[in-house]
Order: sequence, then C-alpha cells, then structure tokens
Amino acid sequence: MSAEANVGVVGLAAMGASLARNLARHGNRVAVYNRHYSRTEHLLDDYGDEGEFYPAKTVKEFVDLLERPRTAIIMVKAGAATDAVIDELAEYMEPGDIIVDGGNSYFKDTIRREKELRAKGLHFVGMGVSGGEEGALLGPSMMPGGSDASWERLKPILESIAAKADDGEPCVMHVGENGAGHFVKMVHNGIEYADMQLIAESYDIMRRGLGMTPDEIGDVFARWNGTDLDSYLIEITAEVLHKKDPQTGKPLVDVILDHAGMKGTGTWTVQTALELGVPVTGIAEAVFARGLSDQTALRDKAQADPFEGPDGHIELGVETREAFIERIRQALYASKIVAYAQGFNEISRAAETYGWDIDMAHLARIWRAGCIIRAKFLDRISEAFEDGAADVSLLFAPYFKQGIEASESDWRHVVATTAEVGLPAPVFSSSLAYFDGLRARRLPAALIQGQRDLFGAHTYRRVDQPGAWHILWAEPGQREVRMAD
Amino acid sequence: MSAEANVGVVGLAAMGASLARNLARHGNRVAVYNRHYSRTEHLLDDYGDEGEFYPAKTVKEFVDLLERPRTAIIMVKAGAATDAVIDELAEYMEPGDIIVDGGNSYFKDTIRREKELRAKGLHFVGMGVSGGEEGALLGPSMMPGGSDASWERLKPILESIAAKADDGEPCVMHVGENGAGHFVKMVHNGIEYADMQLIAESYDIMRRGLGMTPDEIGDVFARWNGTDLDSYLIEITAEVLHKKDPQTGKPLVDVILDHAGMKGTGTWTVQTALELGVPVTGIAEAVFARGLSDQTALRDKAQADPFEGPDGHIELGVETREAFIERIRQALYASKIVAYAQGFNEISRAAETYGWDIDMAHLARIWRAGCIIRAKFLDRISEAFEDGAADVSLLFAPYFKQGIEASESDWRHVVATTAEVGLPAPVFSSSLAYFDGLRARRLPAALIQGQRDLFGAHTYRRVDQPGAWHILWAEPGQREVRMAD
Repeated sequence: MSAEANVGVVGLAAMGASLARNLARHGNRVAVYNRHYSRTEHLLDDYGDEGEFYPAKTVKEFVDLLERPRTAIIMVKAGAATDAVIDELAEYMEPGDIIVDGGNSYFKDTIRREKELRAKGLHFVGMGVSGGEEGALLGPSMMPGGSDASWERLKPILESIAAKADDGEPCVMHVGENGAGHFVKMVHNGIEYADMQLIAESYDIMRRGLGMTPDEIGDVFARWNGTDLDSYLIEITAEVLHKKDPQTGKPLVDVILDHAGMKGTGTWTVQTALELGVPVTGIAEAVFARGLSDQTALRDKAQADPFEGPDGHIELGVETREAFIERIRQALYASKIVAYAQGFNEISRAAETYGWDIDMAHLARIWRAGCIIRAKFLDRISEAFEDGAADVSLLFAPYFKQGIEASESDWRHVVATTAEVGLPAPVFSSSLAYFDGLRARRLPAALIQGQRDLFGAHTYRRVDQPGAWHILWAEPGQREVRMAD
Repeated sequence: MSAEANVGVVGLAAMGASLARNLARHGNRVAVYNRHYSRTEHLLDDYGDEGEFYPAKTVKEFVDLLERPRTAIIMVKAGAATDAVIDELAEYMEPGDIIVDGGNSYFKDTIRREKELRAKGLHFVGMGVSGGEEGALLGPSMMPGGSDASWERLKPILESIAAKADDGEPCVMHVGENGAGHFVKMVHNGIEYADMQLIAESYDIMRRGLGMTPDEIGDVFARWNGTDLDSYLIEITAEVLHKKDPQTGKPLVDVILDHAGMKGTGTWTVQTALELGVPVTGIAEAVFARGLSDQTALRDKAQADPFEGPDGHIELGVETREAFIERIRQALYASKIVAYAQGFNEISRAAETYGWDIDMAHLARIWRAGCIIRAKFLDRISEAFEDGAADVSLLFAPYFKQGIEASESDWRHVVATTAEVGLPAPVFSSSLAYFDGLRARRLPAALIQGQRDLFGAHTYRRVDQPGAWHILWAEPGQREVRMAD
C-alpha cells in the first residue's frame, strides 16, 4: 500500500464521517479507518464521490496510507477508546508524525497524552471541535492545542475546512500548548449551558409569567435575533418554539419531556473552575438546573405533595406586555455578559496556571461561526480583548459596561419579579448576585473570616496593616496576636 | 519496650495533640508520636499530668508501644503526608491492627487506602473529626467509616471522648464502609459554608441595607439564637459582631479584610455533587462567594472604575425595621433548610453510588454537638429521617415543609428587595430558585432538550409515550423519528 493520503481520520461515527467528508470536499486526500469496516464501506458507498478517500481495514494499513510526516485525526469517544486508538497509532507512527484528538477529551488527559507522545517524538494535538455533525461537515470552529511545529503543518488543512466568519476569517487558531485547545472547548460548552439556561428562563417568564403561547414567544426570539442578542442559539430557539409536534399538532415544546440531559463538559467546566478558584456562578447554576430537571423522584414528590406558593403569574399593572418583554431581553443580555465574563476569566486563570499563551481576542473571533455559541456579540468581545479593556474582566470593557448599566434596572426588576411570583430564574439571579458582589466596596466575607478565626484559628488579615492576626477567643481578655504570615 | 498503650496518636499538631489529651483524660493509655520529637516533648511537658502518655521517638517504637490488636489514629495533613505515615505504620503493624485517619482526607483517597490495607489484613478507618482544636480536646463529633469489626473495637474508645448531645448520646457513629466517614464530613463542611454565607448575607442586609451597627446586629443574632435558628454558628456570630478590635476600639468586623479563605472541603463537596449529579446550589454559591471575595484585581478594578447602580440602602416605607429584620430571619431559615436538604441529598446519592448503608437519622444526631454546624434544628432533621418523611428530600418532612411555607413570602420579599437595591445575596436567591424549580409542574428544560435535539441530535423524550425521539430538523418536512432508546 503506498502513501497517498495527506491526512487521515480514525472513527467514522457522525462527527468523524462528517469531518472526513469536509476534508475530502476541500481537496484533501483522506485516509479513513473505523474499527468496524462496515462504517467505512457506508461512507465510501454514500459519499465516495465527494472527493478522494483511501479506506483502510487495519490501523497499520491506515498509517501506511499516510504521507510522511503523517497527520491522523482521531474522532472517537473520549476516555478509554481514545487512549486505545492513540496506542495503536503510536505503534506504527514515526517521530515527526502528528496525532490530533478531535474528541471531547478532558484537558488533563490531553496534557498527559501530549507528554507521553512527545517522549516518543510524536506531536499530539488536542483539538476542540464545535458545531456538531453539521458543523463538522460544513465548517466547524476548531480549537487545536499543541506544539508550534504541528500547528504549522495543520494550519492549511484546518483552515480549508473551518467555518468562515462574515469577514472571511477561518474559525480555527492555535490556542496554545498541550491541553489549551480542549480547555477552551470545555469552557465554550460551559458558556453554552449558561446561554441556553438564560434563554430557557426568559421563555419560562413569558410562558408562565405572561401567559404567552410558544408561537408568540417564538416570534419574540425571532425579533430579538435582530438585536444585540443576535446569535445561533436565539435563532434556533425561535425555530424550536415555532415547531409543531408532527403527531399531535401541539407546540413541540409542550410534548417534550422537561428533563434536560447533559454529557459532561458543563460539569467539567464548573469542577475545573472550582479547582482554579474562579467563580462561574452562571454556568454552575445552569448545570444544576439541568440536574434538578432530571430528578424525577424529587419532582414527582413535589407534585404529589405540593408546596403552597405563588403560581408564577405576573401581574403587569399599568405596564404593557411589550414593555415587560423588553425588560426580559435586557435581563438576558446583562446576565449573558456576566456568564461570558466568568467563562473568559476561567480561561485566563487556566492560561496562567498551565502556562498557555492564549490570544483571547483571537479566541473570541474563532467562535463567531461554526460553533454553538456563535453570535454577533463575539465581535465586541474580541474588540474588548484586543484593546486590553477586558483584561481583568469583560465586564469592564466600555461596550459591555455601558450595556450592563443600560440593562441594570430592568435586570433587577425581572429578578425581583421572578422571586416574588415563584418563577425559578437561577442564572438571572445568580449573575446579578455576582455583579453586586463584584461592585461591593465591602463584602460580608469579613464576618466569615471572623467566624473562621473564632472556631478554627484560621486567622484574618487587617484592613490597616499587613500580617495574619488572631484573637485568643477562648482566653480571658481575648487578646489579639500576630501570627506568622 | 513493652506494649502498654491501648491507643496511639501520630501527629501532634493542634488537632492531634488535643485528641491525644482528650483520650488520656478519659482513661486511655495513649502512645504518642510526632515526626519532630520536640512536639512530643512539649505535649508531655505541658499536659503529661492529664493522663497516661507513652512517648515514642520512632514509628517502630510507637507501634511496639501499642497493645495488640493495635489502634493508631493518624492526625496529619491530608494528602502525601497521610500516605507516608500509613506506609510507615503498615510496615510494622500486623493483621487485625487498625489504622484510623482522622484528617480531612478526600473520600476517594480513603476508599483507595482502605482497599490497599485490607489486602494486608489491616483495618483502615477514614474518620471525619469536626469541632476544631477545641472540639478535639473537649469532645468532637466523629464520623468513622470502615469495617464493622474495626468499629466494634473503636466504639468504646471513641464514645469516651466524643461530644455528648443534650440527651447524653455520644456524637460518634459507624457511618459506613471505607470512605463513608470522610464523605459525610466533607458534606458537613459544605453545609457549613452555606450556613456561614447565609449568616453573612443576613448581616450584610442589616448592615448596608438597614444601616445598623455591628453591635446592633450582634444583638439581633443573639436574639435569633433563642429561635429555630439556635445554633453554634449563630451564637459565635453574635460574639464576633460584639467584639471590639483591641488596637482601634472599632468593631472587629470592620478591621478584618473582607477576603474569605477556604481550605478545600467546600470545593470538594461541590465538585463531588457535580459528579454525582446532585444540585447543591447553596453550597456552590457559598464557595463562589468566598472565591469572589478574594479576587483582588477584579474587586479593585470595580472600585477604580465603578458601575452605576443602587447602593444597597433599603427604603422601609411604612414597615418597621423590626418587621424587616424578622423577614430576614425567615429568609435565613428557609434558605438554610434548602442548603441542608441539598447536602443530605448528596449523602443519599453517594450512599447509593458507593454502597454505603448510612443511617441518616443517626447522622443528624451526631452533628448535634461537638461540630461546627451543631444546632437544635438537627433534632428535627433526625426525626424527619427517623419516620421516613425526609427520604426524598428534607423539604418534604412536615416540620420543614410547614416551616418553609410559613417563611416563604418573607423569603421572596427579601430576595426581591436585595435584587432591587443591589445587595448580593447569592445563597438566599439561589436557594429560592431551587425551591421554585422543584415546585414547577413544567420546567423550561423542555426547550433546552428541543435545542439540543436541533443542534446535536441529542433526541428528546415525549410526555405522552416512551422512546427517544428526534426531529430531522435539516430535512424538508422536518419529520419526527423514533430512535433506539
């Protein structure tokens, strides 16, 4: 078998097959391998005429089909399956070859794998791929992390298949070393959780609070898509809400069971933020909201043995429905800025911790097309990082700061209203609490430090002088002593 | 050296020394060992007359001092130090001997260690110890996890030194196998975070919202300690708020830097809850609130470049200050019930996952004294689990359900007010959002599932029939298809 392919794809399930087709459509000669050969045959049968495919029946054949230095992209399930495929490939590959993991791997696994493969002279690139099956086929947003040398060789291939932003820029960049690509993809997904939950809360307020129909609410989202909120998620929300159930003719959203699923990246985003000490309250509340929705025993019990309390209906008084809907839009916008700010903070902190040099302005640009959180908004985020205004937090970039200040009173009104009428709005309210925590000149954390000093001798710092201090709480006189810092 | 001690303690820092003294004071013959012998000498010099101590200079000597089968309690830093001490002890110990780890170890480390030592015939007991240095000396609440056989031998020793509840019951129980003890101690600490943050939010509302002095607020907490809120944390809050700074004469809380520290168990509680899929919103928001308080760059920037917005002042109108304070108390009580309910849910889920048979009613009882969250309230929690009423959630036990319903309108009013006036109350508001999510007959999670089906073909379930369904969103006609479940 002669080496004729300039790139290869291992794993031909939905994402892998789409990516292989995308590569072939853009003039690449694509070696393809799947554990069960039938999938490979199906790909060739159905789409073989889209470009040049080189099918392999074994991993060795696959590796032999690749021109040296080789480039193989793995698209298999994260975890053990990925490790197994890497091991097999590494057996036949040679120093200078590149293995790209395009799955949703945990970034610490990527760091480990990169280190192991580097010892063998191989380049390992952990690459986040966003956009789902359709994105993989028509143009995903891609976030590769790895060595500079590997990026130089991957760049033309990946740029050929990437989504293009409106200005033509391909949605792919070298994010940083080892786990940087998978890290930012993880946070991308976390932000997506928050964004979706904010949309869901907005819908719930219109549905239960204002008594609107899914169709009417779909119209609102369609209209919002012409504002600052312009984004893929808002667009598809309108589509989902307008969709009728083929079986009953009812609004589809009304026949869907209200238990939201998840696959783990949201959870990782929060767990990792906790490890890094970065508050990501919006993402955390969004993950918990999905979790709560799926707690069947708890929810059934709450229906069987209901709590007294308001039913969610909002009395508008003299205010028009349109005016209140506009308040919801403002609340959504402000909360969304907070969620994005928290997500970018997590990336900054990780970059410091893991030594990644991530160009945040560029990162925001490669999310402008191809991925789930693509939005007009990201142009503004990119500009904010470009000129340094978002270094400490996106919230301080003038465009967003003014946006929040303009939305702020509506945001407060919506959060207050949902609390009063009994509508759950965990991400709206937690984003506002974060914002008010951030604004506070003094936080009651001082009391917490006082408590901690009393029961655990954890010491406190003083506002007026350096050092770690402790009150001898249990001794008569309760003297203050200075401890070793 | 002859075996004369019935129990030994390794690690004589604050906690270990106190525990050794507590053991000796209760008639135990206590072998003591510390890596640096000077600590051992100090203990003997200062407190040698409190009971029978047997000092050892080496681990071997320490082991030789213990009567067989041996019982050694390790009180060293969690992590590598604990592993090192275990390895040393295991070298000299014999099948049937017991090693107790009384540090704040992560429960998965405990599961691993128990398995490794069981293979050598040793009993390994991971034991949560709460109450700080004072508790360790005067009576801690202890949560050992391990084999039944080890518990039988530990029981008389631990019961002798445990805190005693008002009814005389010792605050120690066999929690379950391997990591169960450290797990419940971790969640105990997580609940403690939420409890402290709720107190801090209450304080902040009185301080900034109502303009009260620390002294006045201390009086409020002292009064609250005579209500349903009666607890150690409320009691010490009054003490901290009444305390004057010895240097300036100002209220101590005003000279303490408002950056709260943490040592990791709160973080673990949330990370583990995420892994188990249990929403613990109150604990998460409390951990994030401490995190935010310590983000110096962010907070400094927010002072240098402040956001427009309300200053936290609450206009009472015709309502008296006393009436509003009572609303805060009600909000605190309701939010606290939610935080405890979430914590107990995490324990239940872990018990299912790890196969622990945890007596929740008993667990609540051993937290009634000796530990940081000790409170009258726990008698009620214990009763709720005793009669099965809290099986699904503490919230449904009649005592707490009625308590929440009685507090509910005040709780809503306080959350709405803080949102309007700009006071951060993340745990108040997130607990309320959780409660309203739980109450909801339908959640907007249905919309999220619809979005997920559209962009990721994640499928949805229907309210009216079984199966996993998918809309062919990209095809003309957008048919619905039933997928493999």
